[in-house]
Amino acid sequence: MKEKSVTSHDVAKLAGVSRSTVSHVLNGSNAVSLSDETKEKVRKAARVLGYRPNSAALMLKKGTTDTVGLLITDRDSLRVDGFIPMLHYAIADVLRREGYSLLLETFERREGVNPYNDLVVSRRIDGLLVLSPHHGDADLRNLIESGFPVVMIGSIGHPDEVCVFSETAESIDASVAHVVGLGHRRIGCIPFAPIEFAAAEARLTQLKSALAAHEIALNPRAIIHADYSAESGYAATISLMEDNPDLTAIFAGNDTIALGVIGALNSLGLSVPDDVSVVGFDDLPFAAYIAPPLTTVRNDAGAQGRIAAELLVQRLKGLPIQEPRVRIFPEFVERASCMSL
Amino acid sequence: MKEKSVTSHDVAKLAGVSRSTVSHVLNGSNAVSLSDETKEKVRKAARVLGYRPNSAALMLKKGTTDTVGLLITDRDSLRVDGFIPMLHYAIADVLRREGYSLLLETFERREGVNPYNDLVVSRRIDGLLVLSPHHGDADLRNLIESGFPVVMIGSIGHPDEVCVFSETAESIDASVAHVVGLGHRRIGCIPFAPIEFAAAEARLTQLKSALAAHEIALNPRAIIHADYSAESGYAATISLMEDNPDLTAIFAGNDTIALGVIGALNSLGLSVPDDVSVVGFDDLPFAAYIAPPLTTVRNDAGAQGRIAAELLVQRLKGLPIQEPRVRIFPEFVERASCMSL
Repeated sequence: MKEKSVTSHDVAKLAGVSRSTVSHVLNGSNAVSLSDETKEKVRKAARVLGYRPNSAALMLKKGTTDTVGLLITDRDSLRVDGFIPMLHYAIADVLRREGYSLLLETFERREGVNPYNDLVVSRRIDGLLVLSPHHGDADLRNLIESGFPVVMIGSIGHPDEVCVFSETAESIDASVAHVVGLGHRRIGCIPFAPIEFAAAEARLTQLKSALAAHEIALNPRAIIHADYSAESGYAATISLMEDNPDLTAIFAGNDTIALGVIGALNSLGLSVPDDVSVVGFDDLPFAAYIAPPLTTVRNDAGAQGRIAAELLVQRLKGLPIQEPRVRIFPEFVERASCMSL
Repeated sequence: MKEKSVTSHDVAKLAGVSRSTVSHVLNGSNAVSLSDETKEKVRKAARVLGYRPNSAALMLKKGTTDTVGLLITDRDSLRVDGFIPMLHYAIADVLRREGYSLLLETFERREGVNPYNDLVVSRRIDGLLVLSPHHGDADLRNLIESGFPVVMIGSIGHPDEVCVFSETAESIDASVAHVVGLGHRRIGCIPFAPIEFAAAEARLTQLKSALAAHEIALNPRAIIHADYSAESGYAATISLMEDNPDLTAIFAGNDTIALGVIGALNSLGLSVPDDVSVVGFDDLPFAAYIAPPLTTVRNDAGAQGRIAAELLVQRLKGLPIQEPRVRIFPEFVERASCMSL
């Protein structure tokens, strides 16, 4: 687009206000308190004249971008499961209120290239939210150690990390107690992601130990990893039932996978919960409204997104952070997809 | 963060390259061709020294932000339905490849305030993608007329619009022909959004006329508007069946609503498809894998996102646009959720 020669002086004249008022309004400054009427008058004059304050010039002056990044490490999950969109929505909500823009970033790992460099080194963002960080991500550890404002949804156990994460142990214990209490002993499990994925591994470990507490061993042949989607849950269930036709209960890694589990069981002529009980995870918005209403674990995406965004804003404002590792405790939700044997 | 006094000269010295090479690498310029090895050497030197090229200074020099906005007019739908995340993913994919950052923007309409001003007037973005534009949006019309690069997913019938949209008529006709061909005459409909929403209105009008072509009148009492979510589909179905207990087929406004329709029918002791047939819309990734596999219409979110992003990139590059209004033709997909009477 062509540069216009309109200046803030012209805007001030048309709006009948001072140039500093124009500057305060169009730069979104809160240094002075202005009426909505004045603000709209200035914006209208700017619009009429085609005046655009230059955000790059503003950023240069302020030394910040007022923009933060949201890095999604497993980009394929974006398309198929509802958890990340809910989290994203909650994050965007907080940031909009606080005056920050949000850049959605996804990874493409290439040998020998630090994927954070493009984002951070060029200073397009003031801070970074990282969703589902990987334990072995040395570049992320370096970034944390550099002091750049990073907040993670998930933990990598770094001593300097600022993060929010789900402490899922109790909710998994409760779901196991429920299923075992209904008499189930032959149990299958479909984790939501490959085992390298820290959260999937932690939940599987907890599931095994919860079952062990009831003297039930999870047969390694009764564990098939899925990849977030209903399709992967469907395929895993077909294999699972082929290898273990006597299973009476399946723990699905997330609610979207549970949709596919129920679909696959149905295609095999098995009904949920009459023949096989199914437990989901996340309590996505649809979970209570499907057939049958899904017994699951409420892993509050909205709260995690909100807390992560608030922590990042605190860091960006230089405010002290009382609790750098915030834990969320998911809750077991009993509905109708499990039945007694 | 504090400013460092490290200059590009220091980086060049450490990396053993010229300052202009440093500049080309860190500004992501393609003006000269450099090896991956050289690029990584420069990035590493910048990292070691803590040098950050100032993106604001770069933007000021270039006069562009290399950032585009994605405006979602119905923000609540983000949380509950999978269509927008799929679209978002496809858009982000194209833009990343083309070197643009993507800002997610949502609306908060306030009386007398032009919601596009904050975004566009302050020139934080070079272009804007608008999802599901509203016909009556005068501010959007003004923005289009101002010449600012806008690409819509959806059409508002503006002579200057650049957009991609679903031409759903044929697919709706095909789904009606299928359901009517199975013998259904008492039919209900649950649009995915309120009637003010252009796409919801267009689809309802088409459904009515397709039914009329088979000499079936859609009873106004058999139409209940939902709001994207399974919960709203569940509630609408309970009301629909209370008012019209003799319905044998329901057209759900999207696949997520269809989940709730099936759940509600089930809670009423009705089975799908044995008692009531259900048709979805969108063909979300889960649709083929639920119980029963959902008969639906494939409304390709990925293609729409990709095309919209490509159109916007063309505009930003100043390339001619051969076809400013690109139409996508969804396809009817027969699965197992409809049965003959």
